[in-house]
Amino acid sequence: MNYNDRKVPEVVIKRLPRYYRYLGELLKQDIHRISSNALSEKMKVTASQIRQDFNYFGGFGQQGYGYNVEYLHNEIGTILGLKEGYKTIIVGAGYLGHALATHEGFERRGFHLCAIFDNSPDKIGKEINGRAVRDVSEMEKYVKDNGIEIAILTLPRANVEETAEKLADWGIQGFWNFSYAELKLKKDVAVENVHLSDSLMTLAYKIKQGND
Amino acid sequence: MNYNDRKVPEVVIKRLPRYYRYLGELLKQDIHRISSNALSEKMKVTASQIRQDFNYFGGFGQQGYGYNVEYLHNEIGTILGLKEGYKTIIVGAGYLGHALATHEGFERRGFHLCAIFDNSPDKIGKEINGRAVRDVSEMEKYVKDNGIEIAILTLPRANVEETAEKLADWGIQGFWNFSYAELKLKKDVAVENVHLSDSLMTLAYKIKQGND
Repeated sequence: MNYNDRKVPEVVIKRLPRYYRYLGELLKQDIHRISSNALSEKMKVTASQIRQDFNYFGGFGQQGYGYNVEYLHNEIGTILGLKEGYKTIIVGAGYLGHALATHEGFERRGFHLCAIFDNSPDKIGKEINGRAVRDVSEMEKYVKDNGIEIAILTLPRANVEETAEKLADWGIQGFWNFSYAELKLKKDVAVENVHLSDSLMTLAYKIKQGND
Repeated sequence: MNYNDRKVPEVVIKRLPRYYRYLGELLKQDIHRISSNALSEKMKVTASQIRQDFNYFGGFGQQGYGYNVEYLHNEIGTILGLKEGYKTIIVGAGYLGHALATHEGFERRGFHLCAIFDNSPDKIGKEINGRAVRDVSEMEKYVKDNGIEIAILTLPRANVEETAEKLADWGIQGFWNFSYAELKLKKDVAVENVHLSDSLMTLAYKIKQGND
């Protein structure tokens, strides 16, 4: 099936990881079938929304049966491209780089951390989670030799654009950017800008609603 | 105006921080007026979606004039409850706690970091960004005495629920949870669970689309 026949709105794409996570949790609980109503309640998305979302990918439900959880989980994983074992590096071995290098969920989802780079002599050579921090001067050769696909950027905002442009030239296909900058690159590569404060603002709103 | 007259869907709420960020960037660039079409293009949300979203809060646009950026920025800030200067603590002084304690954007948006707690003797007493890490055994008194409102949870998954239940009893109104657990508490307090891997999965999808 070609999932690209219809343009999938970004808001639907944004929901897929959440579906994927929830379905994974259901599997852990040994739940193998779920109605769109039950899924709706769990996900806090309307049942009709769920049906609409899944229809973009050909739909997976059967009338009167509900959804096959494992099938749905696998399909969404495939749609998200999660089975490909992405080769990943982290650029910036500060506290956030450290935290991400030891994040338990990434390897499990198929993102393999190959190396960590920094430009600070204080950090180069130190070990993080069994990997020595490498000098950024070796990064070009490393990325090219090892066919690295994803760069996680946790370096200071001032350096991120220049570094990302170079990495894109060396073959990086996607950037997971934590550098508080909205990264826009010359090359047409995938970028996911993480804005942690968006989620903090959402929390503020929820607190305010609770107090009203 | 009472913004609570109509129930605002979570998907709309989720967009408000992004609107707030973009409008803040426009202000920095000295742009004070913007059409819904131009805003739409910048935000990658349809113009009619933007109008619908803003209508939940009484609408802010004027036909033929567009939106007043500063007014809109302030209003959305108020809706999000951003002007109240939330008193915040971080629980867990690991790498992620460290990274969040030094995040440049939080204080600016009115989230004041009052203290950092940990239970490890290795960490207690050490300074992070000018604040000594305190012993969790002092947390109850500190939270109550200082009227702490928000707890940022970066402690291990195994301990997070028990700790959060206690914090809620001591008066915490909102949790920003980074502990990979979907926190569900007995008390009706605000919770924002951060799932970093959702954003990484979105990146995987974007890469896949680019390669097709």
